[in-house]
Amino acid sequence: MLKYPNFDFKITHQKDGQRARLGVLKTPHGDIETPNYIFCGTKAAIKALSPAQMVEAQTDIILANTYHLMLQPGADLIEKMGGLHKFTGWHGPMLTDSGGFQVFSLGEGTMANEIKGRKAVYDDKNKNLLQITEEGATFRSYLDGRKINLTPELAMDIQRKLGADLLMQFDECTPYHVDKDYTARSMEMSIRWGDRCLKQFERHDNGAQALYGIVQGGIHEDLRRHSSDYTKDRDFFGTAVGGCLGGTDEEMYNAALWSLEGAAQERPVHFLGIGKIKDVFTFVRLGIDTFDCVIPTRLARHGTAFLKGQPGETINLKNAKYREDESPLDERINLPCSNYFSKAYIHHLLKAGEILGMQILAQHNVATINMLMREVRQAIKDDALDALQKEWLPI
Amino acid sequence: MLKYPNFDFKITHQKDGQRARLGVLKTPHGDIETPNYIFCGTKAAIKALSPAQMVEAQTDIILANTYHLMLQPGADLIEKMGGLHKFTGWHGPMLTDSGGFQVFSLGEGTMANEIKGRKAVYDDKNKNLLQITEEGATFRSYLDGRKINLTPELAMDIQRKLGADLLMQFDECTPYHVDKDYTARSMEMSIRWGDRCLKQFERHDNGAQALYGIVQGGIHEDLRRHSSDYTKDRDFFGTAVGGCLGGTDEEMYNAALWSLEGAAQERPVHFLGIGKIKDVFTFVRLGIDTFDCVIPTRLARHGTAFLKGQPGETINLKNAKYREDESPLDERINLPCSNYFSKAYIHHLLKAGEILGMQILAQHNVATINMLMREVRQAIKDDALDALQKEWLPI
Repeated sequence: MLKYPNFDFKITHQKDGQRARLGVLKTPHGDIETPNYIFCGTKAAIKALSPAQMVEAQTDIILANTYHLMLQPGADLIEKMGGLHKFTGWHGPMLTDSGGFQVFSLGEGTMANEIKGRKAVYDDKNKNLLQITEEGATFRSYLDGRKINLTPELAMDIQRKLGADLLMQFDECTPYHVDKDYTARSMEMSIRWGDRCLKQFERHDNGAQALYGIVQGGIHEDLRRHSSDYTKDRDFFGTAVGGCLGGTDEEMYNAALWSLEGAAQERPVHFLGIGKIKDVFTFVRLGIDTFDCVIPTRLARHGTAFLKGQPGETINLKNAKYREDESPLDERINLPCSNYFSKAYIHHLLKAGEILGMQILAQHNVATINMLMREVRQAIKDDALDALQKEWLPI
Repeated sequence: MLKYPNFDFKITHQKDGQRARLGVLKTPHGDIETPNYIFCGTKAAIKALSPAQMVEAQTDIILANTYHLMLQPGADLIEKMGGLHKFTGWHGPMLTDSGGFQVFSLGEGTMANEIKGRKAVYDDKNKNLLQITEEGATFRSYLDGRKINLTPELAMDIQRKLGADLLMQFDECTPYHVDKDYTARSMEMSIRWGDRCLKQFERHDNGAQALYGIVQGGIHEDLRRHSSDYTKDRDFFGTAVGGCLGGTDEEMYNAALWSLEGAAQERPVHFLGIGKIKDVFTFVRLGIDTFDCVIPTRLARHGTAFLKGQPGETINLKNAKYREDESPLDERINLPCSNYFSKAYIHHLLKAGEILGMQILAQHNVATINMLMREVRQAIKDDALDALQKEWLPI
């Protein structure tokens, strides 16, 4: 039985009758308070931000993507270089996904639509996904076209070499536009893959890493509950909610609820790929402990800033109305990216194609989301989430 | 007569019979020791580096380009936003050029070739330069094609609005592939333009800025000496060496020598657009006090790092030989960009198209050039330039 002696998750506050909770997640690279947000360093780098800049923005934890790294520069190289922490210079807690999400989307960024049921192009877009069998997935590298097999065992071995603290089981990230029968069979296979992951994980376990099981089941209550039961009954350290979450807020809410109600309550729960401000408020109430999403840094590259108190969450600095706006983005954040540079300057940088514009917005967005999470934690303690949500998301 | 009461240049060390010297250049935004290096923040931003990162790299002074800023976002806007220092967050000394260099090249980056006589395409490439008359230059904006007149008076007014400490007179940056007669007439016009600049500068002088005259004359000794005499006889605060410097090291050396021998020795001397490591060693010996060049940040964007002790000055981190190289770029520099990240990591970032790779190299290159300038100053003091040059540029 897996014990995870160097890991721990303590729920430090939870009000009777509520699912929202505060916790402390202990890893070999430090403890983080939850709820918290895991920023995406897809290719072993946060886009446009150095580790020092992430620390300045009060970041606690980041992730990297197994799929990208297995193709470039390869897990063996990263292991040889001492693992992701040493390689990247990020010395805090780190998570890696299993590669499944990207294998089944292939074509970066499109799976985010799939999770939320916005696209019906599963067959078309997966032209690089050659085969899914009980053994695993066969796909073509997006870099050089070579054929690659990814199995649960390999996903574990790669993540072991990468050396993050928190690992994910290999699963099929079930898309939206398949029928319930497909989703059920897919979920059952992910369960068998989960068992193979546990076995392979245990074979090489040295106490440095901890494994999460992933709840699948699409938007179907019975499947979600079944998958949730499975993860609870196995020696996973944590639970992740994955796969298709539906096309509406209600479907997403229900899919998460059915995934969580029967889950092991004492384990940390991660929500894969979800992380708008609105989502954070919705799902901490369901007991989600960690979120991850590419949007803080991706939106920055498109000129968009998250702002506390902004209806719709964001503003786009490319908008001509900021041309002469001398105000900084947010004086409440004690960093030049937020409290010094004027909107006019950032507007100019974006218009002029200066990389610095993206850097400023990326750090600001990360700092803003970290401020959000600090305030959310305080609000859970104070039982004041409703009031805080109105501050962040008026109207 | 212009007095520049808030500026000063003191030569603090100069050995008898040598032109190399140490100095302190005082500006309203701080003093800098010379010889020093002025980093290019063309569009009011150093490419891929924030002001804080420039400070970390021990930068003393930066510049911005009048030509780019007059087109976007416009000098009026920058004035309205409080000037370049407030707008950009760089609070140290700053220089602006006059716009002439870019007006006469148009098509960024090509003029660097022109200075060194590497191209014979003056007529072709200047299709956006519509007319040069005694009054000034008419050109088309590279952004929107609108027709713009730039005169000496306007160049002064724009630079006053931009608000840098050190300004440049408007001049015609004479190209290489014109005959001596053209160069002579061009130089004479630049002299008349210089006088108009001085008059216009004086009209609005509030003590916050200081003006440099520019020595032209191509590769012709008599013209260089004549132009040098002119700047010495006028109330410029400093002297800049500009225009075509020839196609060989010898021509460049002579053009600079003829520009400097007759110049006002007590004034600071700036070398426009020149700044490889080799150039720094060559021209501090001729008495150059400040250099500027885009290469530290431009080379970074191409994956290239300056390294002390590297034959040829630089290495390219995209080279496959760095794939597994665990060594950092330079442990003598106390910044993660230089002493933490492995060459293997930077190689990976460049291969993966991660912006962070450019950011790391840009800061490393700036820090390296600043280390060079500190060591050059020490070597001038110790009369040890030859030995230092061998350390930096073996073979």
